[in-house]
Amino acid sequence: MADAEHIKRVANRIVQTKRAGNEVVAVVSAGGDTTDELTKMAYEVSDSPSEREMDMLLSAGERISIALLSIAIEALGQPSVSFTGSQAGIITDGAHTKAKIVEIKADRVHKELSKGRIVIVAGFQGVSRDGYDVTTLGRGGSDTTAVALAAGLGAAKCEIYTDVDGVYSADPRIVSDAVKLTQVSYEEMLEMAATGAKILQTRSVEFARRYGIELHVRSSFNDSPGTVVREEDGMEEAIIRGVTHDISEAKLTIRGVPDRPGIAAIIFGTLADKPVNVDMIIQNISEDGHTDISFTVPKEDLDTAQETVDSLVKDLDARGSACDPGVAKVTLIGAGMKSHPGVAASMFRCLSDAGINIEMISTSSIKISCVVDESKATEAVRLLHKEFDVANSNSEAG
Amino acid sequence: MADAEHIKRVANRIVQTKRAGNEVVAVVSAGGDTTDELTKMAYEVSDSPSEREMDMLLSAGERISIALLSIAIEALGQPSVSFTGSQAGIITDGAHTKAKIVEIKADRVHKELSKGRIVIVAGFQGVSRDGYDVTTLGRGGSDTTAVALAAGLGAAKCEIYTDVDGVYSADPRIVSDAVKLTQVSYEEMLEMAATGAKILQTRSVEFARRYGIELHVRSSFNDSPGTVVREEDGMEEAIIRGVTHDISEAKLTIRGVPDRPGIAAIIFGTLADKPVNVDMIIQNISEDGHTDISFTVPKEDLDTAQETVDSLVKDLDARGSACDPGVAKVTLIGAGMKSHPGVAASMFRCLSDAGINIEMISTSSIKISCVVDESKATEAVRLLHKEFDVANSNSEAG
Repeated sequence: MADAEHIKRVANRIVQTKRAGNEVVAVVSAGGDTTDELTKMAYEVSDSPSEREMDMLLSAGERISIALLSIAIEALGQPSVSFTGSQAGIITDGAHTKAKIVEIKADRVHKELSKGRIVIVAGFQGVSRDGYDVTTLGRGGSDTTAVALAAGLGAAKCEIYTDVDGVYSADPRIVSDAVKLTQVSYEEMLEMAATGAKILQTRSVEFARRYGIELHVRSSFNDSPGTVVREEDGMEEAIIRGVTHDISEAKLTIRGVPDRPGIAAIIFGTLADKPVNVDMIIQNISEDGHTDISFTVPKEDLDTAQETVDSLVKDLDARGSACDPGVAKVTLIGAGMKSHPGVAASMFRCLSDAGINIEMISTSSIKISCVVDESKATEAVRLLHKEFDVANSNSEAG
Repeated sequence: MADAEHIKRVANRIVQTKRAGNEVVAVVSAGGDTTDELTKMAYEVSDSPSEREMDMLLSAGERISIALLSIAIEALGQPSVSFTGSQAGIITDGAHTKAKIVEIKADRVHKELSKGRIVIVAGFQGVSRDGYDVTTLGRGGSDTTAVALAAGLGAAKCEIYTDVDGVYSADPRIVSDAVKLTQVSYEEMLEMAATGAKILQTRSVEFARRYGIELHVRSSFNDSPGTVVREEDGMEEAIIRGVTHDISEAKLTIRGVPDRPGIAAIIFGTLADKPVNVDMIIQNISEDGHTDISFTVPKEDLDTAQETVDSLVKDLDARGSACDPGVAKVTLIGAGMKSHPGVAASMFRCLSDAGINIEMISTSSIKISCVVDESKATEAVRLLHKEFDVANSNSEAG
């Protein structure tokens, strides 16, 4: 949320929803650039602010948003109350800046709803299990707050308002005929989120799937119906639902690791403890009792990952390591590919015909991801979107 | 606290105090214009934001300050932790925007101090007794937080950093030879605060007196020793310690109130319930079984007070009311006047010689206040400061 006009517009929409006969809980993020500005201030006074204090600092942003929104709603004659994450019962573990929700204690929200009030909740934040410290769920965590609260409250649906009007078959900025999807399944949405679609956080979709919460991804700027994310129910299955790309990861390789049982457990256990979120993993065939292990990590974790790898190389007596931050992951997603063999082969041929080298491959039953050079990412997405006729197979008529 | 440079300077001073061998708890306010900006935003979305939501909103300001200060201190290599009012155990009643501290639960602060950490606490805010809602103590409440915490922690002293370098015998902007006081007693400081010296809140001095906390009023811009506020201990008693003035009040009069027992209790009980803080009260001699009652209230409470008075006029069958917002209270303060009769007479003569009409008078053993026309306030202060030779009787040599 940004300026007064925007706050009033959001207030209006919420009041309309309430007056249409719904009980409404709205989860909001910090306004405009607040989070960036606060982060900048922190780095003006310190090179390495502690995570506990960053959580204290950044949680002020949503606090401002919820109070202003609640005030704007009351100005429209509708009773409202704002809650911090702690007051809304968003209980998390103690992992500052990337806390996980462990419980929703929704009594207080229920109580206010039963009084006819609209409840405004600060997204992105919670309170550690001991009730002692403010935690944040990490950037974009407001979606997760919304879905978790919807689950905790037993809500029928959860609308997610974003700056785009739905989920697209590919990034419309690079694929001109990308189409807005009317529906996607949780599984597909999960894969899309995990492979580069910025529109929803993986975590929020996981929550929604686990608790059967129907998500509506909508624009906060217009009344377009957006995209519904829910369990497939006779939804026509396009072979490919979308093509995503992600340039936020870097590739690391540990070369010449002695190939003995348990070595991967040591490497990825050590990284997980930091914690570094490892995405794709590839282990080459062993030669001379040694093997190369490559994996991708978020670029923001690269420093930590690199340090960890350096010490692992020593501890495991490996031959060395390499790092490539200039990679992109391009992914085909579609539940329909389960029943259509040969999709992977077509994908590899399409890329190879265009002279695009595939560095890593990872597949699941509904997606195929290829790591390619970052400079080739846009071209790869356009080629694949065309090759699999994604626009037509997802058009509303089709 | 304002920009990064200021935060670093404050951090530096706190770390020096810690390294000199002290356990340090620092209470901080919101940065620069934060409170004003947030208030402005609230009024952009509503004409009458609720007090509960204003507390939610404004408490974000200190949250930003404490986190940034703690981060700046840790950047100097000194462990630190920031606490909101709630985390620091500042328990208040539920009166939003003007809550009163009812208890300090200092266990958590003690625990962090015992680990060698500097503890940074958000001033001006607390949590209501049920642990449910953020409350604020009202503007300037950070001093009160500091003193209350000092009391709760059993601290030896409490330094209050302000934008001036101590307590003066009169406002130096209007009295050119006003002198900085080396020491004042709690009683004198209380009267000064209550009668217009903006430097300390009455509440914070009351807390300090009750718990015997020595206050040092110092500048945050230099190392000047400032003014010590403590119990008199052979302190040489100047007859007059200072002259204060206050233009923040308005005068209200209820005319022709039927003079029966309990009428004042009804009037001031009703006002207290709003709550309107009544300061001076004067009741004229009864004529014809009717009396006039005049009193002063803070200008910010004037609307509420006026409404209350209007309904009281009806209920009590009084003859009418009058309001004068253009008044000033000029006060002479000094514990020494106890043993010097005739101070009041000299004061009245001094004002009368200058043609300044006295509208109301209120006295205590250590102060005499006169309400005069607002336009005469500056002149009255200068005349009285000179008449009683306040500069010389308080000079460090004297």
